[in-house]
Amino acid sequence: MPTRPSKTLETFPNPHPDRDYEIELTCPEFTTLCPLTGQPDFATFTITYTPGPRCVELKSLKLYLWSYRDEGHFHEDVTNIVLDDLVAALDPRRIAVEAVFNVRGGIRTVVRASYP
Amino acid sequence: MPTRPSKTLETFPNPHPDRDYEIELTCPEFTTLCPLTGQPDFATFTITYTPGPRCVELKSLKLYLWSYRDEGHFHEDVTNIVLDDLVAALDPRRIAVEAVFNVRGGIRTVVRASYP
Amino acid sequence: MPTRPSKTLETFPNPHPDRDYEIELTCPEFTTLCPLTGQPDFATFTITYTPGPRCVELKSLKLYLWSYRDEGHFHEDVTNIVLDDLVAALDPRRIAVEAVFNVRGGIRTVVRASYP
Amino acid sequence: MPTRPSKTLETFPNPHPDRDYEIELTCPEFTTLCPLTGQPDFATFTITYTPGPRCVELKSLKLYLWSYRDEGHFHEDVTNIVLDDLVAALDPRRIAVEAVFNVRGGIRTVVRASYP
Amino acid sequence: MPTRPSKTLETFPNPHPDRDYEIELTCPEFTTLCPLTGQPDFATFTITYTPGPRCVELKSLKLYLWSYRDEGHFHEDVTNIVLDDLVAALDPRRIAVEAVFNVRGGIRTVVRASYP
Amino acid sequence: MPTRPSKTLETFPNPHPDRDYEIELTCPEFTTLCPLTGQPDFATFTITYTPGPRCVELKSLKLYLWSYRDEGHFHEDVTNIVLDDLVAALDPRRIAVEAVFNVRGGIRTVVRASYP
Amino acid sequence: MPTRPSKTLETFPNPHPDRDYEIELTCPEFTTLCPLTGQPDFATFTITYTPGPRCVELKSLKLYLWSYRDEGHFHEDVTNIVLDDLVAALDPRRIAVEAVFNVRGGIRTVVRASYP
Amino acid sequence: MPTRPSKTLETFPNPHPDRDYEIELTCPEFTTLCPLTGQPDFATFTITYTPGPRCVELKSLKLYLWSYRDEGHFHEDVTNIVLDDLVAALDPRRIAVEAVFNVRGGIRTVVRASYP
Amino acid sequence: MPTRPSKTLETFPNPHPDRDYEIELTCPEFTTLCPLTGQPDFATFTITYTPGPRCVELKSLKLYLWSYRDEGHFHEDVTNIVLDDLVAALDPRRIAVEAVFNVRGGIRTVVRASYP
Amino acid sequence: MPTRPSKTLETFPNPHPDRDYEIELTCPEFTTLCPLTGQPDFATFTITYTPGPRCVELKSLKLYLWSYRDEGHFHEDVTNIVLDDLVAALDPRRIAVEAVFNVRGGIRTVVRASYP
Repeated sequence: MPTRPSKTLETFPNPHPDRDYEIELTCPEFTTLCPLTGQPDFATFTITYTPGPRCVELKSLKLYLWSYRDEGHFHEDVTNIVLDDLVAALDPRRIAVEAVFNVRGGIRTVVRASYP
Repeated sequence: MPTRPSKTLETFPNPHPDRDYEIELTCPEFTTLCPLTGQPDFATFTITYTPGPRCVELKSLKLYLWSYRDEGHFHEDVTNIVLDDLVAALDPRRIAVEAVFNVRGGIRTVVRASYP
Repeated sequence: MPTRPSKTLETFPNPHPDRDYEIELTCPEFTTLCPLTGQPDFATFTITYTPGPRCVELKSLKLYLWSYRDEGHFHEDVTNIVLDDLVAALDPRRIAVEAVFNVRGGIRTVVRASYP
Repeated sequence: MPTRPSKTLETFPNPHPDRDYEIELTCPEFTTLCPLTGQPDFATFTITYTPGPRCVELKSLKLYLWSYRDEGHFHEDVTNIVLDDLVAALDPRRIAVEAVFNVRGGIRTVVRASYP
Repeated sequence: MPTRPSKTLETFPNPHPDRDYEIELTCPEFTTLCPLTGQPDFATFTITYTPGPRCVELKSLKLYLWSYRDEGHFHEDVTNIVLDDLVAALDPRRIAVEAVFNVRGGIRTVVRASYP
Repeated sequence: MPTRPSKTLETFPNPHPDRDYEIELTCPEFTTLCPLTGQPDFATFTITYTPGPRCVELKSLKLYLWSYRDEGHFHEDVTNIVLDDLVAALDPRRIAVEAVFNVRGGIRTVVRASYP
Repeated sequence: MPTRPSKTLETFPNPHPDRDYEIELTCPEFTTLCPLTGQPDFATFTITYTPGPRCVELKSLKLYLWSYRDEGHFHEDVTNIVLDDLVAALDPRRIAVEAVFNVRGGIRTVVRASYP
Repeated sequence: MPTRPSKTLETFPNPHPDRDYEIELTCPEFTTLCPLTGQPDFATFTITYTPGPRCVELKSLKLYLWSYRDEGHFHEDVTNIVLDDLVAALDPRRIAVEAVFNVRGGIRTVVRASYP
Repeated sequence: MPTRPSKTLETFPNPHPDRDYEIELTCPEFTTLCPLTGQPDFATFTITYTPGPRCVELKSLKLYLWSYRDEGHFHEDVTNIVLDDLVAALDPRRIAVEAVFNVRGGIRTVVRASYP
Repeated sequence: MPTRPSKTLETFPNPHPDRDYEIELTCPEFTTLCPLTGQPDFATFTITYTPGPRCVELKSLKLYLWSYRDEGHFHEDVTNIVLDDLVAALDPRRIAVEAVFNVRGGIRTVVRASYP
């Protein structure tokens, strides 16, 4: 049975919870729709976090990012929503999300948000 | 009213039909679904053609490539279908399509087809 | 009806006003005229800001940068004017503008200004 | 007195008319307007020719390319017009023009034309 | 149940058997053992072929390349064996295999073989 | 007799124990198995440390990294284990380990851990 | 009448004297002579300054750098002299000069000096 | 006693006169003066030749290129003169000269000439 | 007992003598002495050959290249000697040697020779 | 008479002793022997210092680095020895030495040491 997009971020226990270390995940296959025109937008997301009690499971993150494919979102907003969802699921010590959107109207947009 | 994906390739008359010249269009925003797993695939299409009576209109090409977003296609097949559709719409003197698909299972796939 | 260049920077409410996050906009299509010789100058502008109450709307920014096309401006001056206009329109928490001008007389010029 | 854009291509006698040699000129500062929307387009032109009786004078070429700044032209058309004008002015043994236009609608366009 | 390495190359029917087109597969994750020292070697394989009746299935190719992980092979030999196996499984119109091996003793080795 | 993989990290006395200096070792040939699927994973390890009483011997480090070839390890875990083993063997003044894993499911993972 | 090299650095009033902003000028066309052998040396100068009351005029800077063409100077010395002359002419808030000299005897030299 | 620029190209006997092999010399330190404005021009010369009876001596080539430093030459002309001088001095089986001149007026010029 | 430089090129039987395939070996660690000044020269050798009856053994090639370390050789000559020695040892179907020497006197030299 | 390798570092008086400025010297032509196997090692040295009373003379530095060609040294040790010798000869305000050694056993080593 094929997998499906999902908003659920699955996690697993941090195998080294006593150490302050960093995980960086780069996902060049993010796509969503423009809420005004309905046209596709494309971005590369880079998620960098220091895990607290739990780490994000890679396949679940892929499905989570896939879940934006048929939704409408503005650049600035969706980057912050991804950050909020990751904070809620992982309770990380610290986390940063960077989204590099493809050129539109001759302008490239990058949005960077972090917690705390 | 927002634009919508469409299989129709609009064209305009070649402004210099007497000359054998070349147009190269690079479209890094192609995405379709895997027919087996339903998961998204991503590719960069490069279309290089010598126009015959007509040239492809840029916005229409964008909508045409968008039309694959919710369909299921194999790499080898979709590259040839895009080529066939462009040949039918443009009747070009010659044309080549190259599709560079993102890594899957540690392997990057490129498909190249041309006419005649 | 075709769009036209305009000095007006349109904005929209910051969707996440409680968070200190960053937006970076890269615009390689800036051109203006030299006030002394009347000849065209070309630059890439990179605008990086942390939004306060409002974000700049992308299409409006494109039209704003376009408005310099037929005006005469010195490198050092125009970079600061763009910064001033963005500060006035956005009231950002902080903002930086970098303009990389094409080589003239064998010399490449970069101007960087920031607020506050 | 400032220089002005001009359609006239000035030339000088080929200093080595007996030899079949090549001159390549790369001009990243070409801009024109879209005839449909009036918005600016940007391109890098590369002109490669084997001179016949005459060579193109560099400053005059700069003014010639500048002359497109306030005119409306389609990508495919303007590349061929530049080629035609250079052929008329230079009577070269052979010449090729390549124009790389900036991304529009997520698609980058390159047009290549040559003579004879 | 986890997948396992396998020498079997699975194939599927060429969806466009009437056209002479090209498929290029890049696999940077090849590793085998040196027959003399038992130490690991690493290579990037690039397989470029024009399919005849059948195409190679991507996951099966991954498992096939994996099957060399615990075997001992010399650079020159293993490249030719991979080519032979692909020819036997696919009966391609033409095929080329390039293997770029990591530096050993300060020397980088590339082996390139093709059929017919 | 061929060498064999080994968990033992051999060391030699720091030739300049009075100075606080840095050694950076980049090892692009790390491979291990996924504990869930049994499939190979690949990574580039970069180890940067300021030696205390002892330095790690290069050939021994190669054998140590080789020892993971037939074991099953998660990305986050194995990076921390390598760090722990190096700390135990070297008693360094400070040390950082960065592991860049190949793309899986369209996502590239980097893990960075350091001591103290 | 052709222009001539000159030691005079012309300046113009800083158009935004109240703001602390940065101007970076990159000049890859610096050449001077070795005082020992008389042979030409070549360098790329990068000048980065925060203007005080005045900015350096671009053409005058080009002529100033040209003035070293027939003089003999050591790498370390000429970089500091250029810095001193710019400080005297501009009274900048701060300024840095970096000169990257071409390889001589297999060694590339970079000199970096700053004020205050 | 310091060396001096010289138009004389010294040569030595081709050590393998029976073989058709190639020597490529890249010289990024060419500078001359514009005959109209007197201002310096800069270029990288690449000389590729198959020696006949004699090869060019490297230091002599350096002094030869240096000899253009205080002379006035147009781009197209000087490239052909360098070719003519090398042909006269070396009697090569074949030779090509490429000169890449720095940007002037926003345009980069490359001149390529060859013999026979 | 440590290995020593040696002029002997060891070979092994070509494992696929019936196929016309290519082996490329890149060796960035070649050094020899200038016969005139006694000073070290450095080069990267790339050897590309189609084996006949035998292939060159990698470690032996390393020792062979090492053997030039304390000898005096001119650029043009040593490249041809390496080619001659490889032809004598391997009897290849065809072979090419390219040597890229480091900059001397501001000039980079590449020598390329091939057989037959 | 040819020059010879020498351990002596010649110096000249700092022409701007009152200013705290930086000199960076990059030397890609360092080679020494492995004390265990006798085989050649290769490295690029980058020396960055702020001169005190004296600067290092370039040709003398070249001869000094050459003096390691026939000696046996470990990576970690030789980097520190070079630093010690430069400190003794120059009495610099501060100095850093970075040595990037070529890949051995699939591992690249960088050593960085500084004073004070």
